[in-house]
Amino acid sequence: MNDSASVAWRALIQAALHRNRSDPGARYIQLATVDPQGHPRNRTVVFRGFLGNSERILMAVDSRSEKIHHIAHRPQAQICWYFCKTREQFRIAGTLETIAADHPDPQALKQRLQLWQQISEKGRLLWFWPEPKAPLAPSEAFVQELSPEQAILPPDTFVALLLDPMEVDHLQLKGDQVYPQLRTLYERCKSGWQQRQVNP
Amino acid sequence: MNDSASVAWRALIQAALHRNRSDPGARYIQLATVDPQGHPRNRTVVFRGFLGNSERILMAVDSRSEKIHHIAHRPQAQICWYFCKTREQFRIAGTLETIAADHPDPQALKQRLQLWQQISEKGRLLWFWPEPKAPLAPSEAFVQELSPEQAILPPDTFVALLLDPMEVDHLQLKGDQVYPQLRTLYERCKSGWQQRQVNP
Repeated sequence: MNDSASVAWRALIQAALHRNRSDPGARYIQLATVDPQGHPRNRTVVFRGFLGNSERILMAVDSRSEKIHHIAHRPQAQICWYFCKTREQFRIAGTLETIAADHPDPQALKQRLQLWQQISEKGRLLWFWPEPKAPLAPSEAFVQELSPEQAILPPDTFVALLLDPMEVDHLQLKGDQVYPQLRTLYERCKSGWQQRQVNP
Repeated sequence: MNDSASVAWRALIQAALHRNRSDPGARYIQLATVDPQGHPRNRTVVFRGFLGNSERILMAVDSRSEKIHHIAHRPQAQICWYFCKTREQFRIAGTLETIAADHPDPQALKQRLQLWQQISEKGRLLWFWPEPKAPLAPSEAFVQELSPEQAILPPDTFVALLLDPMEVDHLQLKGDQVYPQLRTLYERCKSGWQQRQVNP
């Protein structure tokens, strides 16, 4: 029952990804964190899959981005993920963990390397670009092609980001024959995952 | 120069809304706030336009929703708004203000009434439904039609929400002939709005 609730929400996300596969934005998620001033910060990132068979969500970030500092200060996050075609929303709250180039665990470093290699070549360019949010650099600084070595090994700016979910709120705007909308909460407690139906 | 920077970002949003008008999700935005525990909260809401000729952003919420309590505690928010078709993102940070049924200012109450009347009839139903996030009520409790009186006058559960922007971060993933991506920051200071180009 508890484990099946975790499998349930993960399977629902995988089904949503499949049913919305024609939408290029289906893998774009909004990641909210809190900055050191206590203000909310929100940005779009790419969903890079679940880590192995776990329920942990993979993302890729730049070590020079502001969110790295925010996360170091407060690791709590909530992802908001809206699927346009199937009209459903997942809100996934949990704790973030980063895997940077200097991570002490070889297994984590291997995961970071695998994540790097699964990103498109065009996508990998960004980690070689000038510092995000600094005054605009000359256009030549924005490399448009990687050397074979760069393509294989991630630069120090590349950081794998993992969200460990504690709560998932699934809202279906389409509903069923009985209810005009459906909403299910999945909550992780000591004994495992619990799920319950609530009002939308 | 200062005022024109405000006009600039607002005009860019209006242009994006127009260019993405074929996308039913183009008016869906992700609103991040902070809850009393200091954790980020993030959910999809509908953009209901700018208030008159101002730069304030209108949304509609339920007085019984958790976000009302979060906002009362911490009014800071950041909207993340990604347009799929034109591949651009606006991140709009500012302060939220609510206009509930008991607001003392008649002008604000008029704005609340106007907002109610601009929402589709199907959309208005939600404010008559049972308490959000409470255990699932019997399906009969989810009214599917409004009386003529209900359709005209907003119930006490209806709250207009206004974001007063302080900072707008505009990222264009498409770029131009010179730069592969473009990013512009608009910041409100005492003398007005300032804009500057930064690295994406």
